Amino acid sequence: MTSTRPHPEDSAEQRPPYNAFARLCPSRGTLEHVTGRWGALTLGALCEGSLRFNELRRRVDGVSEKMLSQTLHALERDGLVHREAQPTNPPRVDYELTPLGHEVARRVLSLIHFLEDSMDDVLQARESYDAARGAL
Amino acid sequence: MTSTRPHPEDSAEQRPPYNAFARLCPSRGTLEHVTGRWGALTLGALCEGSLRFNELRRRVDGVSEKMLSQTLHALERDGLVHREAQPTNPPRVDYELTPLGHEVARRVLSLIHFLEDSMDDVLQARESYDAARGAL
Repeated sequence: MTSTRPHPEDSAEQRPPYNAFARLCPSRGTLEHVTGRWGALTLGALCEGSLRFNELRRRVDGVSEKMLSQTLHALERDGLVHREAQPTNPPRVDYELTPLGHEVARRVLSLIHFLEDSMDDVLQARESYDAARGAL
Repeated sequence: MTSTRPHPEDSAEQRPPYNAFARLCPSRGTLEHVTGRWGALTLGALCEGSLRFNELRRRVDGVSEKMLSQTLHALERDGLVHREAQPTNPPRVDYELTPLGHEVARRVLSLIHFLEDSMDDVLQARESYDAARGAL
């Protein structure tokens, strides 16, 4: 038997009830929190263990205080990050992944590592692309 | 032998020479093309096979012509998407993943599907979060 139907893993049509390809599906918002400019790096950083705000800020090089705070709020609200405030003086706040957050972060970090490992090819592709454009 | 050192897969420190956590590393740009607002959905859509521009635009619901065009250019320049112009009249342009792009897109689509499958938990977390905030 042959079939041109895509493997279920590769098809969104067969995947009720959430579909990130649909504009109004709530999964699209979560996809954006997770993969947005800072979401992916924040999740990746927390994959190594819990971190305080300023530790995270150093790890996710270049993120502003405001953006990191917004990113953490969105991830916390989605149930991916847990914020733990210790009753110390001054108060100490740790951020860590929830079990669901860890599952998501593992996938994000695997993507980050794959891209890092592929950068020689990517940079070569960019060079060819730019050279071809320059030659036009 | 015990060790508190994270598994190599979970640690960026041991991964020369590219490091997306560093602000100036070129891998950060590629991470943003791949995970940006539209990059992830575009790669995911192309995972099912080659598509024409307007087919892609319908599949990635809500993307504007301009944003899809920018997204495809960035992915093409990074060597993840191949643009094939047929010498027909009117010209027909197909977009498809390169082998490297397919590797990336598989990981992105797996993340998208995992999030879609987790949305019941995510929505419940949002409800608890908002209820706790409302009660303050």
